[in-house]
Amino acid sequence: MSIIAPLTQTIDMGFQALRDHYLAGSLTPHAVLADIRERAKTFQHYNIWIHLLTEEEVAPYLSALTQKDPATHPLWGIPFAIKDNIDLAGIPTTAACPEFAYTPVESAYVVQKLIEAGAIPVGKTNLDQFATGLNGTRSPYGACHNSFDYDYISGGSSAGSAVAVALGLASFSLGTDTAGSGRVPACFNNLVGVKPSIGLLSAIGMLPACRSLDCMTIFAYNTDDANLALSVAEGFDPRDGYSRANPFANQTRHYGLRQGDLTVGVIPSHQLKFFGDDDYANAYQDTLALLADCGFKFSEIDFAPFDEIAKLLYEGPWVAERYLATQPLIDEQPEVIFPVVREIIAPGGKPPATALFSAQYRINDLKQVCLAQLAKVDCLLTPTAGRHFTIEEMLAKPIQHNSELGYYTNFMNLIDLAAVAVPTTFTARGMPFGITLVGSTFSDRMLLSIANRIQQSLPLPKGALAHRAAPTTTSPIGATDTIDVAVCG
Amino acid sequence: MSIIAPLTQTIDMGFQALRDHYLAGSLTPHAVLADIRERAKTFQHYNIWIHLLTEEEVAPYLSALTQKDPATHPLWGIPFAIKDNIDLAGIPTTAACPEFAYTPVESAYVVQKLIEAGAIPVGKTNLDQFATGLNGTRSPYGACHNSFDYDYISGGSSAGSAVAVALGLASFSLGTDTAGSGRVPACFNNLVGVKPSIGLLSAIGMLPACRSLDCMTIFAYNTDDANLALSVAEGFDPRDGYSRANPFANQTRHYGLRQGDLTVGVIPSHQLKFFGDDDYANAYQDTLALLADCGFKFSEIDFAPFDEIAKLLYEGPWVAERYLATQPLIDEQPEVIFPVVREIIAPGGKPPATALFSAQYRINDLKQVCLAQLAKVDCLLTPTAGRHFTIEEMLAKPIQHNSELGYYTNFMNLIDLAAVAVPTTFTARGMPFGITLVGSTFSDRMLLSIANRIQQSLPLPKGALAHRAAPTTTSPIGATDTIDVAVCG
Repeated sequence: MSIIAPLTQTIDMGFQALRDHYLAGSLTPHAVLADIRERAKTFQHYNIWIHLLTEEEVAPYLSALTQKDPATHPLWGIPFAIKDNIDLAGIPTTAACPEFAYTPVESAYVVQKLIEAGAIPVGKTNLDQFATGLNGTRSPYGACHNSFDYDYISGGSSAGSAVAVALGLASFSLGTDTAGSGRVPACFNNLVGVKPSIGLLSAIGMLPACRSLDCMTIFAYNTDDANLALSVAEGFDPRDGYSRANPFANQTRHYGLRQGDLTVGVIPSHQLKFFGDDDYANAYQDTLALLADCGFKFSEIDFAPFDEIAKLLYEGPWVAERYLATQPLIDEQPEVIFPVVREIIAPGGKPPATALFSAQYRINDLKQVCLAQLAKVDCLLTPTAGRHFTIEEMLAKPIQHNSELGYYTNFMNLIDLAAVAVPTTFTARGMPFGITLVGSTFSDRMLLSIANRIQQSLPLPKGALAHRAAPTTTSPIGATDTIDVAVCG
Repeated sequence: MSIIAPLTQTIDMGFQALRDHYLAGSLTPHAVLADIRERAKTFQHYNIWIHLLTEEEVAPYLSALTQKDPATHPLWGIPFAIKDNIDLAGIPTTAACPEFAYTPVESAYVVQKLIEAGAIPVGKTNLDQFATGLNGTRSPYGACHNSFDYDYISGGSSAGSAVAVALGLASFSLGTDTAGSGRVPACFNNLVGVKPSIGLLSAIGMLPACRSLDCMTIFAYNTDDANLALSVAEGFDPRDGYSRANPFANQTRHYGLRQGDLTVGVIPSHQLKFFGDDDYANAYQDTLALLADCGFKFSEIDFAPFDEIAKLLYEGPWVAERYLATQPLIDEQPEVIFPVVREIIAPGGKPPATALFSAQYRINDLKQVCLAQLAKVDCLLTPTAGRHFTIEEMLAKPIQHNSELGYYTNFMNLIDLAAVAVPTTFTARGMPFGITLVGSTFSDRMLLSIANRIQQSLPLPKGALAHRAAPTTTSPIGATDTIDVAVCG
């Protein structure tokens, strides 16, 4: 019988708490980073880190803070973790495949922007190799363990990035998300997970999984922190072919507290799947009841077209992108690739372009059906994952259970949607559960604002810490769509 | 020595002229359609039509006009031609391949909208088979001949649709454009050719060439007529996976006369190609001089990234889409396909999805470079085609010369641009020449407004008719971007 760990007693690692400490002089970034390294030892067997920065490696970032004014550097002294398929200058990027590793000269564009704003990198985190998985066990660095129950999966592929934040070893972290990797681990570790619209965060310096679908993502305790990190990180980057300008209505000023009536789309019972996890099924029903009490209204949407799209991701020709991303290794040294990952990627050279075009046509047709449904609601709301597996269960059926983990997440990037995963409750035995809000391209701030309302209404601990996560922002955003108008006469 | 025909003496087939006749009672749609059928006999050897509607086939459309008020049906009695890869109910669609033919029960969405607005279908026009070509010679129905000089190519693939309008056998026509098929024939026949943003015109009822790139297009004498036909035809169609809502700034009310300073991007001399056609080279220089006199300013842009994109279209994996579009015929009866078309399409089953993804990545990267350049100018201006070939020349080198015809057009749909081809002058020996205005997605009305200014400044005959084409719209649209604002208090 596995045991849920008690909430971790540590300093409050939320942005505001750290800022308050820094301004009051009761803590320094140097002390916080030293404390993180010390506490990380306690969690060594969780396999969170592929590379935890040494005191010497962190030193330059801490020194640079002396040149930065906290008032103008919104992430001054905030520690963050980086999934190890995203570059940090001078530290190897492995993608959880040591034979693939290289040491980048430059940090990823987003990492660089965060550092410029004062954030301090803590380390590079463990992942399902080449970001191929949603569970966190597919790594030669060991399966990553859940922050609440060591016997359970962390979720993946952004495994270590989620667990690091949940256990207070970073205040936020960067993940990536092709099929759900930035959302599933948020659900399993009681975190907010932001999967932005494709192209909102530059992919320069991020290893591709499926380059046409990948997003960089953010894990944080609450929507305030997530929105702030996103605001710093986002920006058009012409070097990234998928980068897009963020439209006015989605800019950071439109983050707030979405008030008034809200109608969210939900999946009819016969299309819900919990794969035998009654705890999660109950937690989902509890969540809907809690949200109904907060004024949410529900409208059923047909999940069949979303599900058909989802199936095309792993069963269709997009695996060709994973094949491209691992060349030449997959051709020259296939034996060094983690077995289950190799099994998935190896056939990727085979599908013809005709199959890809056919699949794209089908997806575009289905997308129209999905968008027409989304247009009738403020957003779609789904469980983030249907079942929380133990590591043992996952290893027994690594392909089937991984596919089950993606039931509510795989469709998202194929039809260019935005999503925010947000914790809502705990199961009967005390494990975290959360839902995902889904909206059309560049609905990121709207989704974050609704998630903010959920967090205000349902205050929960911060990850696995003994601190509350409720965001502090109270600027209301009404249910009526509004637009700021500048009139020049 | 080939002979340029004198301008055709017929009634003025422009929209306004016909409307005036109808309102004055000096002509009826019935009479105009009968006259067209009569005059069509004169041009039978031009191979314009695959199916010219009989009196009986046109009758129901003419009868329906009695139930329609000309005041509320903007195309009341206006005859139009339809490229034979677009469905007209009850008439075979052949794509210029009789063995492929089928008889659709319903008209294409766009055709239906035009008919509802009062337009009268004249017939189905000849094309490069399966819309695979830019020259108009690749058809078992015979090479389509140019409206100015019978020895010259019509341009294609929308060959008959352009020549029909140029010779006054229709007031406007529908073409399609994947690689330039809606622009090249406009240039060679002294017409406006509108290649709208992908998804502005529904593709439902249009046979695909490359379904991810195809656009339905409009040929007309001037921008007023083109804009009106476009306004009637356009509209979001959720059955078409590529259909998109037209943003406010591109709606028909934003068509007008673009006044004030205009800076257009032009290709530096060393990147211009006329493939030995000194007449066209001179006509292009004359055009720039004429436009400079009208207040156009020029700014050089680097054409290399556009050219690299263009090369990927015919040399890259997009041929897989043509393969899909001709299945199962290409597999089961390849011998019935026109030889040069078969030669192009047959290898389309071979490229792997990896090649397609790689090409898409490269195109996205190049697109950012192209868009950054376009952002600095009001639009890009290029020759529509570099050389006007005789039919004999074209048949001698069908692949090479076709590729040369696409030098200024092939890149367009791969990076989702809008374009308007507009005639600007005649060569020394009296053949038509024109340029293409190119802008970003949904710049259609802006381009039409600039083209309107060009037509007002450089009045030319209507196609090959002895009537002037200058549009009548004079509502000015200033150079400064403006937006209509509704303020609700």
